[in-house]
Amino acid sequence: MALLRTPPPHGGNLVDRVVRNPDRAKKMADGCVTYDIKPTMLDGVPIRNVYREIMSICYGFFSPVEGSMVRNEVERVLEERRLLNEWVFPYPLVFDISEEDYKNLGVGEGDRLLLRLKGQPFAVLDIDEIYKIDPVDIATRTFGTPERNPEVVKVPFDKKHPGYMIYRSMNPVVLAGKYTIVNEPKFRDPYNKFWFPPAKCREEFKKKGWRTAIAHQTRNVPHVGHEALMKNAAYTGDVEPCRGILVNAIIGAKRRGDYPDEAILEGHAAVNRFGYIKPERHMVTFTLWDMRYGNPIESLLHGIIRQNMGCTHHMFGRDHAAVGEYYDMYATQILWTKGIPSFGFEAPPNEVDYGLKIIPQNMAEFWYCPKCGEMAYSETCGHVDQKQKLSGSFIRGMVAEGIFPPNIIMRPEVYKAIVKWWKVYGYPFVNPKYLAEKDKTLEVDVPPMEVSKG
Amino acid sequence: MALLRTPPPHGGNLVDRVVRNPDRAKKMADGCVTYDIKPTMLDGVPIRNVYREIMSICYGFFSPVEGSMVRNEVERVLEERRLLNEWVFPYPLVFDISEEDYKNLGVGEGDRLLLRLKGQPFAVLDIDEIYKIDPVDIATRTFGTPERNPEVVKVPFDKKHPGYMIYRSMNPVVLAGKYTIVNEPKFRDPYNKFWFPPAKCREEFKKKGWRTAIAHQTRNVPHVGHEALMKNAAYTGDVEPCRGILVNAIIGAKRRGDYPDEAILEGHAAVNRFGYIKPERHMVTFTLWDMRYGNPIESLLHGIIRQNMGCTHHMFGRDHAAVGEYYDMYATQILWTKGIPSFGFEAPPNEVDYGLKIIPQNMAEFWYCPKCGEMAYSETCGHVDQKQKLSGSFIRGMVAEGIFPPNIIMRPEVYKAIVKWWKVYGYPFVNPKYLAEKDKTLEVDVPPMEVSKG
Repeated sequence: MALLRTPPPHGGNLVDRVVRNPDRAKKMADGCVTYDIKPTMLDGVPIRNVYREIMSICYGFFSPVEGSMVRNEVERVLEERRLLNEWVFPYPLVFDISEEDYKNLGVGEGDRLLLRLKGQPFAVLDIDEIYKIDPVDIATRTFGTPERNPEVVKVPFDKKHPGYMIYRSMNPVVLAGKYTIVNEPKFRDPYNKFWFPPAKCREEFKKKGWRTAIAHQTRNVPHVGHEALMKNAAYTGDVEPCRGILVNAIIGAKRRGDYPDEAILEGHAAVNRFGYIKPERHMVTFTLWDMRYGNPIESLLHGIIRQNMGCTHHMFGRDHAAVGEYYDMYATQILWTKGIPSFGFEAPPNEVDYGLKIIPQNMAEFWYCPKCGEMAYSETCGHVDQKQKLSGSFIRGMVAEGIFPPNIIMRPEVYKAIVKWWKVYGYPFVNPKYLAEKDKTLEVDVPPMEVSKG
Repeated sequence: MALLRTPPPHGGNLVDRVVRNPDRAKKMADGCVTYDIKPTMLDGVPIRNVYREIMSICYGFFSPVEGSMVRNEVERVLEERRLLNEWVFPYPLVFDISEEDYKNLGVGEGDRLLLRLKGQPFAVLDIDEIYKIDPVDIATRTFGTPERNPEVVKVPFDKKHPGYMIYRSMNPVVLAGKYTIVNEPKFRDPYNKFWFPPAKCREEFKKKGWRTAIAHQTRNVPHVGHEALMKNAAYTGDVEPCRGILVNAIIGAKRRGDYPDEAILEGHAAVNRFGYIKPERHMVTFTLWDMRYGNPIESLLHGIIRQNMGCTHHMFGRDHAAVGEYYDMYATQILWTKGIPSFGFEAPPNEVDYGLKIIPQNMAEFWYCPKCGEMAYSETCGHVDQKQKLSGSFIRGMVAEGIFPPNIIMRPEVYKAIVKWWKVYGYPFVNPKYLAEKDKTLEVDVPPMEVSKG
């Protein structure tokens, strides 16, 4: 067994579609028809903003994807979870607009469209193809059905599933083609401190000497159970435990009751800042993405993102990136252990041609065991009758009551990150005020940029 | 990455040189010259009993070794750590007798010698070759020297090193040839509960569904730091943590101040019996071997033993199987990470032809961290200024004073195993009384067996 090294990016090369030279950027943007990016809405609430996909694509998180997919590629992704260039990819990614907007824009195939964000030029889309989609059909096929995917889909997806509703709420006209960012957005505080696009993240790994690193998916402020998962899953590696632990938060549209994104990032940062996992071994980052909660399907995207960032391993728990009981609670672990043929995987996604290189670490549960006197692993601890589960909702309840959680449940320095943002938004969790503000500010400011009209 | 499975035995097949049919056994033993096995002595204290090597060879722990090595094989082992059949093996293993005994026996090459243990027939040795050795030369070359092995040997071995003294104290005449046990010894209580020779151990793994298992080397009663090492090292595996944790105690000649072997075995058993690591995942066994404390060299033997028992992985800490500061504290980890050319390993022993298949898990230290509120790993915990090392000698001191150690240092049920044998021998550690009794009883009783005189 040879020692592992940082794997190559998915597809072989990191995508970098960001023009940093202002003159070149201006030249690209000048004279284009412009379009102001609009969030995808559901019942008056923004549930997705395509700007996040454009950022993740152009900065290489989703390598080798370079833009909004053409019709054949969407079909191939839905049928086989492969791009037209053969590489595995789980989700259709498209730039969708309304019939009305399409008529008003008057663009056609071969045109370049300038996309504006927060009133400023942001990116261009070079239109290769324009076609129509049936959002219900795309939504259904993206996540699967009990009939077509009996291995892991238990009940039909419906309007209670936020990822399904993102696809269902899309506009019917797709403009397909490559994106290029012509005016780099600046991340607001505290996002700026955690912005490590793949190329930069790989450099950081090199600096830290992280030959091996394991990724931790999160959209939560970490309690001690999450900390235990991170620390313990990281004992896998090759001839020694993984050198690094990469926390990668998925930052995007929020739902009421979620923790604010700022508290999530700063809560995780407190774990290393206060030495629960030392900073030489732990690093907090994020990816912009409106979470689709696709469990096994989402785990593929997570694998791709974190392989692109340089990780050798990815930890997967039960109910990975799941909501409700649409999927088998082990769906992700089944995918990474033996594959899910109905989704195009006769073998695990890191054992097929044009597959991923990242290695899964499938984990069971952690609980607090008073007999062991520590956070215990369900496959190790024999005191199941005494287990104390640290459920997220239990801790949420504690936080909501203003109770300072004990150190064995949540680290005090992590709790302080919650309190800090509680003071800012007047509530510890996402509320209508937070949603309104997030919708307006997003995570970035877009610097002013002058372009000539067409 | 395909899922791991129980590896094949070292050398391809498990050695089984135990005759279980009494008629056949009697036929083999009848008419042989007999020899009563004597311990190797140093300053009036037994430091080795070759019966343990005969047991470990005949029951397959040391597969593919089948007996006392011929001169060329000893040379090859010392020069390249390979047997004549090419397979990696670290130590010379010989049946040595005094000049006087040799003269009295009057045996020659081609003869069969009947070896007696505790006054009863035990095994036969089919003599292939008789030759002389220089014990000092063998001792020196077995462990290495700073000149010849500059990568890892720091100071010359001397009479303070127990393994070196085992080789130095050997007799000068070697009878080489295969051993066959003709009269199975019966393990005394509590050894009988932990006797899992490789074939039986592999069956047990199958019953338990242990596709993967990691070995833990021990000659200690486990404190919570050992428990942490076991539990945490076992998070390595393939796509999930190792299914099983195999404790394999090295049982043999003791030194004053050691814990009694019985307390070691029952102390480890208490870990699973009382659920600190559940018995579905944890199993206690032993191997008979007078520990040579050869750090990297010993780690090869440990790897071979545990691969033969069915383990996929082996955990190695700093100063593995070490005593004193003869070797670099990382010598074993260096061997398993990049090899030690001067010992014949240009690459790790599981990457060379005819090498091992077992996978190393190289581990750093554990300490108790009051800030984390748990046993912490040195590569994770940032509170190094607050660390509380659980040193064996600290706990020994506590035990010697009759202090019941707190639960975060030693589990009460483990401590009770120490107390149980303390009552039997009148002292918690190995004392002259224990040594005298162990020398007389060994770990086995040998049933009476009638053989005809030659």
